[in-house]
Amino acid sequence: MSKILVLNGANLNLLGKREPSIYGFETLGDLESSLKAAFPTQEFEFRQTNSEDELIGFIHKAFEGKLAVVLNPGAFTHYSYALRDACAALTAAGGKLIEVHISNPHAREEFRHTSVISSVATGVIAGFGLNSYHLAVSALTRN
Amino acid sequence: MSKILVLNGANLNLLGKREPSIYGFETLGDLESSLKAAFPTQEFEFRQTNSEDELIGFIHKAFEGKLAVVLNPGAFTHYSYALRDACAALTAAGGKLIEVHISNPHAREEFRHTSVISSVATGVIAGFGLNSYHLAVSALTRN
Amino acid sequence: MSKILVLNGANLNLLGKREPSIYGFETLGDLESSLKAAFPTQEFEFRQTNSEDELIGFIHKAFEGKLAVVLNPGAFTHYSYALRDACAALTAAGGKLIEVHISNPHAREEFRHTSVISSVATGVIAGFGLNSYHLAVSALTRN
Amino acid sequence: MSKILVLNGANLNLLGKREPSIYGFETLGDLESSLKAAFPTQEFEFRQTNSEDELIGFIHKAFEGKLAVVLNPGAFTHYSYALRDACAALTAAGGKLIEVHISNPHAREEFRHTSVISSVATGVIAGFGLNSYHLAVSALTRN
Amino acid sequence: MSKILVLNGANLNLLGKREPSIYGFETLGDLESSLKAAFPTQEFEFRQTNSEDELIGFIHKAFEGKLAVVLNPGAFTHYSYALRDACAALTAAGGKLIEVHISNPHAREEFRHTSVISSVATGVIAGFGLNSYHLAVSALTRN
Amino acid sequence: MSKILVLNGANLNLLGKREPSIYGFETLGDLESSLKAAFPTQEFEFRQTNSEDELIGFIHKAFEGKLAVVLNPGAFTHYSYALRDACAALTAAGGKLIEVHISNPHAREEFRHTSVISSVATGVIAGFGLNSYHLAVSALTRN
Amino acid sequence: MSKILVLNGANLNLLGKREPSIYGFETLGDLESSLKAAFPTQEFEFRQTNSEDELIGFIHKAFEGKLAVVLNPGAFTHYSYALRDACAALTAAGGKLIEVHISNPHAREEFRHTSVISSVATGVIAGFGLNSYHLAVSALTRN
Amino acid sequence: MSKILVLNGANLNLLGKREPSIYGFETLGDLESSLKAAFPTQEFEFRQTNSEDELIGFIHKAFEGKLAVVLNPGAFTHYSYALRDACAALTAAGGKLIEVHISNPHAREEFRHTSVISSVATGVIAGFGLNSYHLAVSALTRN
Amino acid sequence: MSKILVLNGANLNLLGKREPSIYGFETLGDLESSLKAAFPTQEFEFRQTNSEDELIGFIHKAFEGKLAVVLNPGAFTHYSYALRDACAALTAAGGKLIEVHISNPHAREEFRHTSVISSVATGVIAGFGLNSYHLAVSALTRN
Amino acid sequence: MSKILVLNGANLNLLGKREPSIYGFETLGDLESSLKAAFPTQEFEFRQTNSEDELIGFIHKAFEGKLAVVLNPGAFTHYSYALRDACAALTAAGGKLIEVHISNPHAREEFRHTSVISSVATGVIAGFGLNSYHLAVSALTRN
Amino acid sequence: MSKILVLNGANLNLLGKREPSIYGFETLGDLESSLKAAFPTQEFEFRQTNSEDELIGFIHKAFEGKLAVVLNPGAFTHYSYALRDACAALTAAGGKLIEVHISNPHAREEFRHTSVISSVATGVIAGFGLNSYHLAVSALTRN
Amino acid sequence: MSKILVLNGANLNLLGKREPSIYGFETLGDLESSLKAAFPTQEFEFRQTNSEDELIGFIHKAFEGKLAVVLNPGAFTHYSYALRDACAALTAAGGKLIEVHISNPHAREEFRHTSVISSVATGVIAGFGLNSYHLAVSALTRN
Repeated sequence: MSKILVLNGANLNLLGKREPSIYGFETLGDLESSLKAAFPTQEFEFRQTNSEDELIGFIHKAFEGKLAVVLNPGAFTHYSYALRDACAALTAAGGKLIEVHISNPHAREEFRHTSVISSVATGVIAGFGLNSYHLAVSALTRN
Repeated sequence: MSKILVLNGANLNLLGKREPSIYGFETLGDLESSLKAAFPTQEFEFRQTNSEDELIGFIHKAFEGKLAVVLNPGAFTHYSYALRDACAALTAAGGKLIEVHISNPHAREEFRHTSVISSVATGVIAGFGLNSYHLAVSALTRN
Repeated sequence: MSKILVLNGANLNLLGKREPSIYGFETLGDLESSLKAAFPTQEFEFRQTNSEDELIGFIHKAFEGKLAVVLNPGAFTHYSYALRDACAALTAAGGKLIEVHISNPHAREEFRHTSVISSVATGVIAGFGLNSYHLAVSALTRN
Repeated sequence: MSKILVLNGANLNLLGKREPSIYGFETLGDLESSLKAAFPTQEFEFRQTNSEDELIGFIHKAFEGKLAVVLNPGAFTHYSYALRDACAALTAAGGKLIEVHISNPHAREEFRHTSVISSVATGVIAGFGLNSYHLAVSALTRN
Repeated sequence: MSKILVLNGANLNLLGKREPSIYGFETLGDLESSLKAAFPTQEFEFRQTNSEDELIGFIHKAFEGKLAVVLNPGAFTHYSYALRDACAALTAAGGKLIEVHISNPHAREEFRHTSVISSVATGVIAGFGLNSYHLAVSALTRN
Repeated sequence: MSKILVLNGANLNLLGKREPSIYGFETLGDLESSLKAAFPTQEFEFRQTNSEDELIGFIHKAFEGKLAVVLNPGAFTHYSYALRDACAALTAAGGKLIEVHISNPHAREEFRHTSVISSVATGVIAGFGLNSYHLAVSALTRN
Repeated sequence: MSKILVLNGANLNLLGKREPSIYGFETLGDLESSLKAAFPTQEFEFRQTNSEDELIGFIHKAFEGKLAVVLNPGAFTHYSYALRDACAALTAAGGKLIEVHISNPHAREEFRHTSVISSVATGVIAGFGLNSYHLAVSALTRN
Repeated sequence: MSKILVLNGANLNLLGKREPSIYGFETLGDLESSLKAAFPTQEFEFRQTNSEDELIGFIHKAFEGKLAVVLNPGAFTHYSYALRDACAALTAAGGKLIEVHISNPHAREEFRHTSVISSVATGVIAGFGLNSYHLAVSALTRN
Repeated sequence: MSKILVLNGANLNLLGKREPSIYGFETLGDLESSLKAAFPTQEFEFRQTNSEDELIGFIHKAFEGKLAVVLNPGAFTHYSYALRDACAALTAAGGKLIEVHISNPHAREEFRHTSVISSVATGVIAGFGLNSYHLAVSALTRN
Repeated sequence: MSKILVLNGANLNLLGKREPSIYGFETLGDLESSLKAAFPTQEFEFRQTNSEDELIGFIHKAFEGKLAVVLNPGAFTHYSYALRDACAALTAAGGKLIEVHISNPHAREEFRHTSVISSVATGVIAGFGLNSYHLAVSALTRN
Repeated sequence: MSKILVLNGANLNLLGKREPSIYGFETLGDLESSLKAAFPTQEFEFRQTNSEDELIGFIHKAFEGKLAVVLNPGAFTHYSYALRDACAALTAAGGKLIEVHISNPHAREEFRHTSVISSVATGVIAGFGLNSYHLAVSALTRN
Repeated sequence: MSKILVLNGANLNLLGKREPSIYGFETLGDLESSLKAAFPTQEFEFRQTNSEDELIGFIHKAFEGKLAVVLNPGAFTHYSYALRDACAALTAAGGKLIEVHISNPHAREEFRHTSVISSVATGVIAGFGLNSYHLAVSALTRN
């Protein structure tokens, strides 16, 4: 399979340091290591940004390069229609984009119950900690 | 790991025959075979019912027997608070219950965007066809 | 024409005994007799149940057997998305299903103004007492 | 039975020419012919108008002359409280008025799901093409 | 004082005949007589129409002729923004327009609780039967 | 006619001093004088209070003494269900209670568009300055 | 058990005189007598007030004196967050406060379906006439 | 008094085992014993079911046999209009049906604040643990 | 290009006289002259009406004659589903219809933010004074 | 600077005793002492009341005497439009009124997120414990 | 006329490549060429960015330099109040800013029906493909 | 006390130039000078950005460096859940963050009444012009 872009949005650079009772103690570095270990033959590109602009740019890159995407948008999930339109361009063209969440947004604050991304994602995986990303990669590589 | 209950709710007995452009051509029998093949050492119990009552009973059985559950509630997802309370009893007691959907509910009718189950599920996986169940079993067996 | 399934949902077994100012004094037995008298060459199957599960089963039977359906869902009308999905399977496959109501739901309580069934029914007939069923059978046999 | 007023509201003069995938290829003339043929002993008066004012006038005429009414309000269905009040005057005085629709409004745009007429109609019939009118006349002549 | 236009909208031609428990047994003729008797030196013009178009025309005439208006819009009250804009033109130019209702709309159906006219009326008088008009004329002639 | 209670609620003691562009320069004293002058044979009792409790007490007094009431509730209009229930007791027993407003609430802030009093008032008069009270007294003495 | 405060809010002084089809013909005096007769060894303090302020004061007194409270807030039920906060102070400190209603608010007007008190009450009893208070005292003395 | 049906709906078979911080440690067996002990001369019938269908059947039985009902619908409270219609048939015919809840639904999740049953119940008792049932039986036997 | 119908709806006959701070001092006559001057080779038909009925008729004429339409519906914009359906017939058949507004509705009252026409218009132009019409004609003649 | 009125509304007399995890252990007496100590040259008047009526009276006094106000309305914040109108009279006349809250209402229950006072206050300070009052006095004395 | 800034927001760099059935096959380069060709004497500056920040910066530049703006915000249209405030600064200072859309947002998903920009734009043009920009430039250069 | 980060979000670089009737004539430079003058021993860092990304970065810096924050988010206040999550990380870890506004958002447009930041801020200060920042620094340095 072609390279998979693993994208993490707003505030996910704080992973392991921010509200660990919700997000756990593992960091993005741990995520990277564990994904590489679990899928040794799969090429990955890992990106984290707090910038909606950059995140859109990464989706555009996947659109151009026909890459599959695993996307944890962070809080952009709840309002960034600009990000949504980028994702829609990708999946409308047949690309694969999986929305993941570390925690289960439906068990948290009301505003987290709405995702403007889900309706244009290929699929959604939420609530499994960093394992959500592993499952997403499995989904992309098995299908 | 202990036995996993794979539960399918309302109308899922029509799988393979009903609106195949949405639900595909595979049947529950295919699901059963493929899960057993993919997880040969894992014990499963497969149940489908159109009865909210029976579905609640299966969840109670998992609650009593400390079984993990993979649950596709079908349309009960959107209104069955009785099913929700059964699931809540299970997960509040530390049990694992994963809500799965074959299609991506957020890409369909408005009423499918609301799940009364998600807030008490361990996690949610949606949009991967029958592979949603495979991912759910992976999640249960890996964690 | 093939057999017509005439299905009555929740609380309709009380017909003739329950709130007669709204539902009248005629019973389901009267309905059965009058339909057979009015359409002597038409084969019918009459079913009443307070069980959502059984009602879904009858719709599935119609789906399998390519039967036309006259359905008075009773109060399931207002919330049973599981019943709705069963009906949708039937009509999406080209089957005929007519939603009927004895009284006019729009002239009653607010919650009766919403039907989760109507959007997937072939047509809707409401407000004519037991004659609603006669009109529905006419619609099926004339079309 | 006394004369039946068959009233068609806004845009129904385009019947047969407008969006035939929704409204079919038959015209109001076809409707008139088929009703006369089906109910040869019944006197009818047929009216179509795009004018709310005229439509109210026809309802008033029925109110004065104690005529039964078959009414397809077209899009007035969704907002004309003035038409509603005319209908209410009629049915509150014991007159019969049946709301009909050619297509099934609940299977179309959101705004078509609300009828301001239904709560004051004797009954509602929708989704049977021109046959909706035949069923309405049956309902009036049989009751 | 200059001439007062007394305007009655949709269905008010039925006054005295329609739902007398709500609207009473007096007719528009009775209203005309009683107003002339009560205000013998005041010039009046009385108009009733079921046509939104004509009603707008009467308001325009008042706008042009700087006449005061007593307006019972009937059910146009609840949705006719076209009538509202005509009234707004009148009162924004310093004209007087009083909205009257025979019954008390707030004691009736929900949809009658909203008036799109009130925000651009000089004042509102409701619930006094035909006396509502007398009070309105008093208000215009006293101020 | 028996005595009329003229009741003014919250903040109306500031009349003439508060936001005169909305409420004018006349005071409650002016209102009292002008009403006595206009209706010289009518007995009045004038009360103003910022206390919901006292206002309810005045309505109870009218209920006991079968007095007619002219009530400007001030901002209690928009939320005091306790005042509403007092008024409802009065009018349900056949008493007369007229809700008046100096300004036109519908031409002001959104929250002023809702009156919890109107549905249990005999009638409503708004927008005529202090003349609103004169019209209310006319309505009580003429009916 | 310590003294029980039986508190009645807005308009309950009219009990027996106001809308008897809803509230019955018994008075607060009857309530007092019947409670004393039914619970002869229990000390009571009975208070009725139309004043939110006084009612809050009574709750504060219970808070200070660790008294149990039976509270029928009357229409304050639906909007008095000030009363709610007083009750919350009491129950957050371990005090007992039971909200009672004579009639069943859910069978009446829409605005009566919301109670701002219930979420901070120990329990709620509604619909049993004056017996609601008896049940509340039973609940306090039995628990 | 005739026999009282004590009905417990969805998930109440888990009583004593499920979320004891909310529902306590007592079981339905304890409830049965304590009610029999407290009301030794009263005949009871105790039923628990997770089936909406069965619960409706029990209400129908009470309707036929003119039995009084104590009903804890569990989560059916929040959406089962079918159950509501069964209860409405009972109480519209003069039967007694008391809705009880162990916990105080208004102090819990938002969805528990709505009961579709309350508007057709004779009365409502909530928040007293198993004592809610005792109070309900008191209410039935005292009235 | 074929003839262009320039249609102006409710109250636009007052243009130049009504609320000039919003609508300016130019009249429909000025509009007609300036359009003819700007597009000398283009055939136009200019119509203004306060009648929804007539406006629908003009749209039907365009539908029959395959004319392009520039439509300023006035306040019909906000509620006339009958006009909407006429426009939908036109554009569904491939006709061009451009919705224009003199002022910017989104900078005005809340009710002007909703257009029931826009979803079936070819395009929308608002806020440019009479120039909105010029731009619309440019759009029709250039495309 | 002229005297500052420091007003505390409903339930604030319980300060230091009520829910100390939210409101702290300091009392109104402590507040008075600390403000006098911090602003030794500033004249203060301190008032607490659970009465909406009295609170309105204090605002009126400030309106008459051109005093600045620091107002913690307690729960009146969320519904007392009568208090709002008093505050509006004050600030519309150029007076200064600062709304303060001890806790941060936006971090608490949903109903605390709405203030009917804020839109007519000069400014709002919330979340600083008793220091909120100090900041408000600073704001008044520095500006 | 001074230079016109033609600004394109989120995802418009994909123009010609993304969902061509909606957005067409022309690119931003084509737009630039065709505008220069159509308005040869007009100076333009063309900018596209997926960054809200940069887009705000361009609006600020227009504010400082008194440039007119043609703005297609892309999906920022629906939520970027920051962009809105930048536009408001420009137009409140007398600058011209025209909101354009390639497709007709009202004929697409619900979320596209809301623009937070329109209320502060000079005008809005939507639905004409790239011609929307031409019309906007015409509007700026003609006015 | 440690260094205080004074952060200004979207469009605040225009301070002094943009809509001075709302925001005043003072600039961010003036703010910086006046804060340094008022708190001469306090170390400050001043940042303004129109970039959500940068603003999040500054909050992260405060999170890492345990700095206190005074934050005027500008229009990000109303929708940036990404900024909210950054603030939540800070305050959940015990950091201090005060939300300030120059004007009083509740006295302005509806959309400004909602802050997605307030629920995770330590406190909120609004409506005091640049003095809002002074009060915030006082709050941080006094507590």
